[in-house]
Amino acid sequence: MNDKLDDETYARAALTYLAEPADPCLATLLRAHGAVVALDAISTGRLPAIAEAPRGKRAMESAMVRWRTRLPLLPPPDEVLAFRAAGIRLIRPGDPEWPGQLADLGDAQPYALWLRGQADLRFNCLRAVAIVGSRAATAYGSYVAAEFAASVAARGLAVISGGAFGIDAAAHRGALGADGVTVAVLACGVDTPYPAAHTELFDAIAAQGVIASEWPPGLHVSRLRFLIRNRVIAALAAGTLVVEAGERSGALNTARHARDLNRRLMAVPGPVTSDLSAGCHQVIRDWQGLLVTSAAEVAEHLAPIGHLGSGQAGDVQDRNPRDLLDLDSAKVLDAMPRRGGLGTLRVAQRAGLAPATTGACLGKLATAGFVERCDNGWRLRRA
Amino acid sequence: MNDKLDDETYARAALTYLAEPADPCLATLLRAHGAVVALDAISTGRLPAIAEAPRGKRAMESAMVRWRTRLPLLPPPDEVLAFRAAGIRLIRPGDPEWPGQLADLGDAQPYALWLRGQADLRFNCLRAVAIVGSRAATAYGSYVAAEFAASVAARGLAVISGGAFGIDAAAHRGALGADGVTVAVLACGVDTPYPAAHTELFDAIAAQGVIASEWPPGLHVSRLRFLIRNRVIAALAAGTLVVEAGERSGALNTARHARDLNRRLMAVPGPVTSDLSAGCHQVIRDWQGLLVTSAAEVAEHLAPIGHLGSGQAGDVQDRNPRDLLDLDSAKVLDAMPRRGGLGTLRVAQRAGLAPATTGACLGKLATAGFVERCDNGWRLRRA
Repeated sequence: MNDKLDDETYARAALTYLAEPADPCLATLLRAHGAVVALDAISTGRLPAIAEAPRGKRAMESAMVRWRTRLPLLPPPDEVLAFRAAGIRLIRPGDPEWPGQLADLGDAQPYALWLRGQADLRFNCLRAVAIVGSRAATAYGSYVAAEFAASVAARGLAVISGGAFGIDAAAHRGALGADGVTVAVLACGVDTPYPAAHTELFDAIAAQGVIASEWPPGLHVSRLRFLIRNRVIAALAAGTLVVEAGERSGALNTARHARDLNRRLMAVPGPVTSDLSAGCHQVIRDWQGLLVTSAAEVAEHLAPIGHLGSGQAGDVQDRNPRDLLDLDSAKVLDAMPRRGGLGTLRVAQRAGLAPATTGACLGKLATAGFVERCDNGWRLRRA
Repeated sequence: MNDKLDDETYARAALTYLAEPADPCLATLLRAHGAVVALDAISTGRLPAIAEAPRGKRAMESAMVRWRTRLPLLPPPDEVLAFRAAGIRLIRPGDPEWPGQLADLGDAQPYALWLRGQADLRFNCLRAVAIVGSRAATAYGSYVAAEFAASVAARGLAVISGGAFGIDAAAHRGALGADGVTVAVLACGVDTPYPAAHTELFDAIAAQGVIASEWPPGLHVSRLRFLIRNRVIAALAAGTLVVEAGERSGALNTARHARDLNRRLMAVPGPVTSDLSAGCHQVIRDWQGLLVTSAAEVAEHLAPIGHLGSGQAGDVQDRNPRDLLDLDSAKVLDAMPRRGGLGTLRVAQRAGLAPATTGACLGKLATAGFVERCDNGWRLRRA
């Protein structure tokens, strides 16, 4: 990188502040005009003509309001550049370090990625396996995740995971212990450790591997962001291995992305008496995931990206009341602070939605019992 | 059975003394001339002309020497008949109790089967699953075998196994505990318990199910006989479930037979850290065995014999109208001859029920369309 940001890079950095990842309206704008024009359009509030607007003009206008709501949060170019001092860099499509396989995500490709760490993301993801699973792992799952990660890392594969408790942490640690490269793809800023208990683990990953995020530095996690993040884990890796997962585990969401992206999908079996192996067995039984019992098998199954067989279908259906919310309401609920209250405008900024939309969603969420009014606005309602 | 043995039955009984099962030379002889001529040939030492002798004349002559060596061990017809007093019966191809699916074994079909026990072999094997695995089972394997066996037995499936320590015993006991029918296919005489520690278990199986063997009463096991026996377990059942097996377990031999016979092949996963699950994982990974995690899945995979798919997962076919019968009616239906009619008293004797109970059940079965009146009493109604 130069000591100045080029316009395209700054525009894409800015977009990570203004829009949530995989926004279909922004994808349309980017495809038609590129990031510089898209940022200019958001800044000025004037949409350029878009020949192809699949979501319709109204959707685009509504997106514009949503994006503009976050304009006050956008740092000037100098500040974006300042993150470099903290060892943070930004890569965008076309950069030498940009992993080409992310193009498989199509319109859901990240606008840019914030990185922290010594390892080259593109190079290490040429041969990489995602090892994912439950936060509430058993001793068996943690053991297997660490062992497999160490062994595949020793074979020169990078181990990608999500930095969470349980299987994720065991996988990262296993790879680090084998002097391998590991990649943590986070759902928060790369300088904003989540969980906080993993601060040291993230420092170790940065020293020996790399931490990546679609969200800008300083940003905190929210529940929905984990799910959006999972597609990047699946896309970066040639294959995804589920080590231990309950039937509604987020790891199955990553597994589904891997299958949909035509990556290798693998799972480690376990006792049928263990709920935490039920998701793995589902992957093998219903999604034609490959049963693997050793790191050697994992390595064998990983062909270079582009030469992968097809994974067959079968659907995950997370049965959770939150799943029944419309997307905007889910974003608003997600943006609510865990403690204390916030005014509608702040909620709108956190959620990346227009204030009016946010207000309407808050009303619906209050009716449904998720939130309630308080002195300074709205707060989560306790169960 | 009559109180005398017909020539064909005696000849086949005799062949179980003279030849080891699945002898290709004997199969050639049987196919060309039938059991009576075959026995006569062995007795006299004079081979009839055999147009098709794939193994060659020399092989046939060598087999003849082998068979004739055992002639002194052959009991006379009266002694064969005497086993009936000990509750042992003999069935041969064409008998009402002969399970038709054994014909799938082709030339390796048993010459005859010695049986001990109350249950009708043919009827119970119409819907049966083989549950097999290691003798040196873990607590996990024994628990799963017993649980699955009890649960499938409660769904009206017979549980077939080999009477050995470990998984076999757990499967038999699970079925018995659920008041189900279980079939032990032994590699020794049905009156010669092996292992001896299972004497009481075999008595319980005889009281509630049936013990079967290709070898005549009084015969002891030998190592090779276990392997030859396994094909019968696989052939009798609509599917074989491997619960726990090392990579060289005899249970995998049964599994291979099941696969080669186009039966459902299923396996229970376990920890990848357990050597005793390695065989199960091999079955799933390398032999396209179906991963099952519950008895309900096992039942789903088992269609009636004759309607078996290619080994692919998915169809649910276990709603058999027979399952809806009360136990006595099921026993009466079970006791009906496949061909021809019988009076109520004879049906009662075969069913092991009082004549009055039997009469009431026959009435219900007639209403439900299972049986109908005929000249000499009752007979099965054809679909």
